[in-house]
Amino acid sequence: MRRVAIVAAGVTQFGARKAGLKDLIWEAGKAVFASNSRLRPEDIEGLVVGTVMPERTANQSHIASLVAECLGIKPQKLSARTEHMCASGSVGIRYAQAFIAAGFADLIMVLGVEKLNLPNMDEALFNMGAGVDRDWEACYGVTAPPCFALAAQAHMTRYGTTEEQLALVSVKNHNHAKKNPFAHFQKGAEVEQVLCSKMIATPLRLYMCSPITDGAAAIVLASEERARDLTDRPVFILGSGQVVEGFSLSALHDDYSHWPPMKKAAANAYGMAGITAEEIDVAEVHDCFSIAEIIAYEELGFCEKGEGGEFVARGCSDYGGKVVVNPRGGLIGCGHPLGATGVAQAAEIYSQLRGEAGERQVREAKIGLTHNNSGMGEHLVLIYGAA
Amino acid sequence: MRRVAIVAAGVTQFGARKAGLKDLIWEAGKAVFASNSRLRPEDIEGLVVGTVMPERTANQSHIASLVAECLGIKPQKLSARTEHMCASGSVGIRYAQAFIAAGFADLIMVLGVEKLNLPNMDEALFNMGAGVDRDWEACYGVTAPPCFALAAQAHMTRYGTTEEQLALVSVKNHNHAKKNPFAHFQKGAEVEQVLCSKMIATPLRLYMCSPITDGAAAIVLASEERARDLTDRPVFILGSGQVVEGFSLSALHDDYSHWPPMKKAAANAYGMAGITAEEIDVAEVHDCFSIAEIIAYEELGFCEKGEGGEFVARGCSDYGGKVVVNPRGGLIGCGHPLGATGVAQAAEIYSQLRGEAGERQVREAKIGLTHNNSGMGEHLVLIYGAA
Repeated sequence: MRRVAIVAAGVTQFGARKAGLKDLIWEAGKAVFASNSRLRPEDIEGLVVGTVMPERTANQSHIASLVAECLGIKPQKLSARTEHMCASGSVGIRYAQAFIAAGFADLIMVLGVEKLNLPNMDEALFNMGAGVDRDWEACYGVTAPPCFALAAQAHMTRYGTTEEQLALVSVKNHNHAKKNPFAHFQKGAEVEQVLCSKMIATPLRLYMCSPITDGAAAIVLASEERARDLTDRPVFILGSGQVVEGFSLSALHDDYSHWPPMKKAAANAYGMAGITAEEIDVAEVHDCFSIAEIIAYEELGFCEKGEGGEFVARGCSDYGGKVVVNPRGGLIGCGHPLGATGVAQAAEIYSQLRGEAGERQVREAKIGLTHNNSGMGEHLVLIYGAA
Repeated sequence: MRRVAIVAAGVTQFGARKAGLKDLIWEAGKAVFASNSRLRPEDIEGLVVGTVMPERTANQSHIASLVAECLGIKPQKLSARTEHMCASGSVGIRYAQAFIAAGFADLIMVLGVEKLNLPNMDEALFNMGAGVDRDWEACYGVTAPPCFALAAQAHMTRYGTTEEQLALVSVKNHNHAKKNPFAHFQKGAEVEQVLCSKMIATPLRLYMCSPITDGAAAIVLASEERARDLTDRPVFILGSGQVVEGFSLSALHDDYSHWPPMKKAAANAYGMAGITAEEIDVAEVHDCFSIAEIIAYEELGFCEKGEGGEFVARGCSDYGGKVVVNPRGGLIGCGHPLGATGVAQAAEIYSQLRGEAGERQVREAKIGLTHNNSGMGEHLVLIYGAA
């Protein structure tokens, strides 16, 4: 099995953008090529595009070919669009990774894009329900916020996690996003502000939820040999894991505060990388709601089960703590353009492990992790290392 | 690189079905497990689902997880949905192939599904335009039929291909479909019937076009070692190739009768398999329109450039000829449920190479090929061999 590394990365401005799908694609393409002057469009052998619902937001399928044409790429070995709701970008990274590892290609671009804000925001909100079962759950209002609210309630009941601790995740991530010029929100936040914001699904308030964001991101993956030609500091994929155990809420384990598939996906990724949780310096975790980040600390092994609330309250997941979580601002501060999220997380880890993250730089970051859930019962973990 | 083989395959009834997306998924899942009694749902480590537009036809994304739940599968290593318009199923097969070849998993199901017929057929027709550029082409009526009509006109002008030869592709495929109990059409066809059918886009008439079909298909791919445990007659993937050179019509090569990306994709697949076109016994090619099959004969190397019309007229692509093309009935006879097509083609080759195709059996079939285009400028070829 051949090693695979990131050799270029770029992101667009995230936000409620006055831009269409193609504008976002062009912007991410420009950014990724600008990030590595040795990289030429004609060298890209494959293209994988992570995106969830251009069918609904732009009446458009056949997205990989649209992207290829937008960027002037003519993939001679691989072209595909991947979708796995909130993990669509990371699922695309794993397609490219496997394709290179198997020896089928040497240089593949992975681009994630999502245009979610629409002139008619009622339609945009309806679209957000596409991730849960339309027939059995979405139609009864069981979309993402109430699901994760159940997890928060269970965690509070079982482990004494407080609303303030939930708020502290949001405060940290909004403050991180302040240092990220590409983030949706760049004003920072204070605990009181979070706790006084509108209730969305008890106990989750507006500032504890990721917003409806437009954006795109792109990275280029290469075989080790190709990577050495293209950069002096490639960032390798050391391991990955994905576990899917439940889609609809009714199919999930009884205790919403425990997410066993995340623990398993992490164990697989750590095992492949030959490392332990203690070795992670920087992590981009899927804080679609603040409770998700608290449970992630626990299931990823950063702290004991039930101590996630304490972990954030003590600053263990911030700069100077045990592991810096979501330096980019996370989904809460940076925004969550579904297909783009996993790719943007990888772009951040690339920048962090190369020591190029500027104001957001995590000191001596050697090993990074990205995590996506695509529902409480489905998790994907990737681990990256420099050299 | 590890070898990868098909160990199970099943298809649903194709047609204008009184069935929803989930019904089709259940039916394909039942069929694939029924095809191999040694296969258990709990052994499936990964799931890849090829589908184009459930977002439009069922307001649903997150399809791989929906399928996992429908089939009682809990993928512990991989879960993804792939989309590449008409090649969505085959792009899914290549994801699973690469994942197993790289050593990341041993047993992955690939399921293709598409529900295209809707109560409101105006909406269904609008959806069919999702494969071309909405902003620049679909909105001016440049959908698939006029594009392929241009190819037909160019081929007729340049090589003297006749309307009758175009019709003969349809006649052959409709007559093949007559022997396929799962085909959309099972009445066969005669030349006069094809030539008297409604003109869709000159010179392509109704019977020269693939219909709007609902259906699903599933196969299971395994590493060689795992395959030997599961069946005495695995069917191996010997090679594959995919080349994308143009999405919108304006970006295509000047001469619509030449499809260089198909020739390149085939060359890559033949090269990887270490075979030549002469060795193909049975081929499932993408006859979305009859002209596509004629050009496929040429670009795949079954005959010289420009001789595709003669090739079908002489019976070279029928039983007893040089290579049996589309024994299942092709997209014209069997139907074209986008995401399901590539998987159903693979299922047919699996059955043919195992000698289990009954009335449709190609004698002494040892090597098979599947081909999909996702537009004239984009092609994907897979080559399979027994043992």
